[in-house]
Amino acid sequence: MDGVTFTPLERIRTGGGEVMKATRSDAAGFAEVHEAYFSRVDPDAVRAWKRHSEMTVNVVVPVGHVRFVVAVDDETFQEFDLGPEHDYGRLTIEPGIWFGFKGGEEGGLVLNLANILHRPDEADGAELEHFDYIW
Amino acid sequence: MDGVTFTPLERIRTGGGEVMKATRSDAAGFAEVHEAYFSRVDPDAVRAWKRHSEMTVNVVVPVGHVRFVVAVDDETFQEFDLGPEHDYGRLTIEPGIWFGFKGGEEGGLVLNLANILHRPDEADGAELEHFDYIW
Repeated sequence: MDGVTFTPLERIRTGGGEVMKATRSDAAGFAEVHEAYFSRVDPDAVRAWKRHSEMTVNVVVPVGHVRFVVAVDDETFQEFDLGPEHDYGRLTIEPGIWFGFKGGEEGGLVLNLANILHRPDEADGAELEHFDYIW
Repeated sequence: MDGVTFTPLERIRTGGGEVMKATRSDAAGFAEVHEAYFSRVDPDAVRAWKRHSEMTVNVVVPVGHVRFVVAVDDETFQEFDLGPEHDYGRLTIEPGIWFGFKGGEEGGLVLNLANILHRPDEADGAELEHFDYIW
């Protein structure tokens, strides 16, 4: 859908570990990072729904599994199963789009590389029941 | 020591998880993020020694435990035990400083928010034995 992009990212095995890319300033659609923060998501916990008016959400899941769900319209949803054992990449959600997420069986870790500083007044929330999506 | 800064970061419990800050563009010493990548570090694995000539290393450990060791001189070392159950914060290492790191008993995950794009020619490596540090 318009305003939602998934960019696959590279993982490189190294001695004693792994390098997992997250973003580069020469990548298509790169936006300046003004705030970076992690969200630890408990197993099966749901955080929905949210819509930003200014922030472009730019998330990578380096640990576990987190399902992001984007509302295309009131009845149509797009799902992204993010995580190293699922789709490893960066999901970009432009302002104005409702989304939510749910931790997988073992939970997960989300990194958001946001293009603005956190400001509560630029985000709307809606109750889980606002959309007819079965979490 | 000069050129090495540890900045404690906030962790905020939320319903179904936790928000763990990583960086903000209005923080003291903030540098533009040109590349962000994770390094997964296996249990007890050592990655040392490395020195950048241009990159400022800016690391946060959101999972597990990773010990960063900075060489103050040939015989003096500064240790930073990073991780949510240890010191949670951002360690900034300016160019020109030798450092290395080791995964804790359960390994760990490092996020580096680098101020330049990765370029192998701006980093030196040295063998583990180069410094008299007991890992």
